[in-house]
Amino acid sequence: MANLDDALREAAATIISALTRYIPAPEGAQKRLFEAMRYSTFAGGKRLRPFLVLAGADLFGVPRAHALPTAAAIEMVHTYSLVHDDLPAMDNDDLRRRQPTCHKKFDEATAILTGDSLLTLAFEAIAASSGHPDPAVRADLVHALAIAAGAEGMAGGQMIDLEAEKKNGALDLDAIIHLQRLKTGALIRFSCEAGAIMARARDEHRRALRIYAACIGLAFQITDDLLDHESTAEQLGKAVGKDAKAGKATFVQLLGADEARRRAHAIIDEAEAVLSPFGSKSALLRDVARYIVERKN
Amino acid sequence: MANLDDALREAAATIISALTRYIPAPEGAQKRLFEAMRYSTFAGGKRLRPFLVLAGADLFGVPRAHALPTAAAIEMVHTYSLVHDDLPAMDNDDLRRRQPTCHKKFDEATAILTGDSLLTLAFEAIAASSGHPDPAVRADLVHALAIAAGAEGMAGGQMIDLEAEKKNGALDLDAIIHLQRLKTGALIRFSCEAGAIMARARDEHRRALRIYAACIGLAFQITDDLLDHESTAEQLGKAVGKDAKAGKATFVQLLGADEARRRAHAIIDEAEAVLSPFGSKSALLRDVARYIVERKN
Repeated sequence: MANLDDALREAAATIISALTRYIPAPEGAQKRLFEAMRYSTFAGGKRLRPFLVLAGADLFGVPRAHALPTAAAIEMVHTYSLVHDDLPAMDNDDLRRRQPTCHKKFDEATAILTGDSLLTLAFEAIAASSGHPDPAVRADLVHALAIAAGAEGMAGGQMIDLEAEKKNGALDLDAIIHLQRLKTGALIRFSCEAGAIMARARDEHRRALRIYAACIGLAFQITDDLLDHESTAEQLGKAVGKDAKAGKATFVQLLGADEARRRAHAIIDEAEAVLSPFGSKSALLRDVARYIVERKN
Repeated sequence: MANLDDALREAAATIISALTRYIPAPEGAQKRLFEAMRYSTFAGGKRLRPFLVLAGADLFGVPRAHALPTAAAIEMVHTYSLVHDDLPAMDNDDLRRRQPTCHKKFDEATAILTGDSLLTLAFEAIAASSGHPDPAVRADLVHALAIAAGAEGMAGGQMIDLEAEKKNGALDLDAIIHLQRLKTGALIRFSCEAGAIMARARDEHRRALRIYAACIGLAFQITDDLLDHESTAEQLGKAVGKDAKAGKATFVQLLGADEARRRAHAIIDEAEAVLSPFGSKSALLRDVARYIVERKN
């Protein structure tokens, strides 16, 4: 998938350059906060969510300049969620992408404010008049992102995850699918649907993208569980086997590695099939789906 | 100020009723999160910021239904900031409005997610198509609120405050005025200006409201310092003298209580004067200004 590699690299460079413009330069009285926002945002990562925003926008011919603020915003929200989830009171992780987590590098208070500020900046970026020219689209994007990120989306998923851990992880398959849908699926769904919102695409197309998003989100989580089960910390750049040790239910635990892998591939077949109305324009999105189950970290 | 008391009470009831509709009912898998969001939001308080939104909207004849989502949103953002600021890693407060703080009543992880979720819900409320009928106004409100709440507004102010505390609070008068402008002033300014944004008011009116907001914000902080200096924990419903003990610079410390009180009143005279273009329509806003320096908690 040479094309996908190139496209991911090119999109990541565009996103990083946009994020550099959005996050204030580390100077003045809030220097430490701006530094921590940059540290966490520029720590690497595949930039998959903003890539999905840009690829989804391309499907409908939305100009890149109109899509870029939303692409940057989704990466800010993703980064905020990692910074807060890593906190001692939450998942208590010291390492993220081979680097000290934000609260380890700075301190807990700075990490809390860094997450808060990145979340807030995401909405500022989307709502700014320099973004999508149609203010109704900007308002719709803010609304959809807020639903995806909030108590009935990602933040709610993290709450369910923490609760399950306290109860020694007695989640069954339906429950961890529901958990995944909120905790990681909601943001992926927004990423895939954003281009359709920007283009005011017709319902049939939005529905297809929603199904695609649900499929790749679920396959992504199953693959994460497989990697956590089968890789070394060296390969992943973070601690492995933590979920199993914490007694959290994972797809691998519930299904076994072979069945989990089989399901992930079947789900990705479905994701590819549902893109057929978009024809060859959706080649990159099909490659992404394939990449999600074949990645090594 | 019987009229103001009635108006505050009436607005608070309207706000509480709106917040009850916005925050999901405490049931389902995220029950604990919804409970904590309600606990923190309904713990009381003067509801001053949403009152300012509604009073500002009234100045321009903006229908209450168009202003209410923003009024509810500003209270969500204010509540989020209290929940996060109270955390052990931040100000480490056990008591807020005579009740255990969110992380004391629930736990730290729940408190972090509660703040995150309230902040996110605020943007959802403003951006929803059920709010202000003009989507350009909704986008502008989201943008202005994000700037007020983020790293160059409230969250940035909290960062500066924490940094100053670590350095043993060697802030001079200019520095604490700058700190106040960000930490508490930015949200008050948004609250006062929101009605003008909704009505697309002319620049002269927006400017007057911004000056009014800057004045009442500064006077509010000076009065807070005076109350912290002169009241008992019983009167305030929270610990007193904490700032002075923590070595934080306060207006009272830098100016003395008498001079601080004199300045607060002079600033409030200015706030009242700047409302003159609005004539008798601004009576309530003038009463609020007076109330801010005369309140006992």
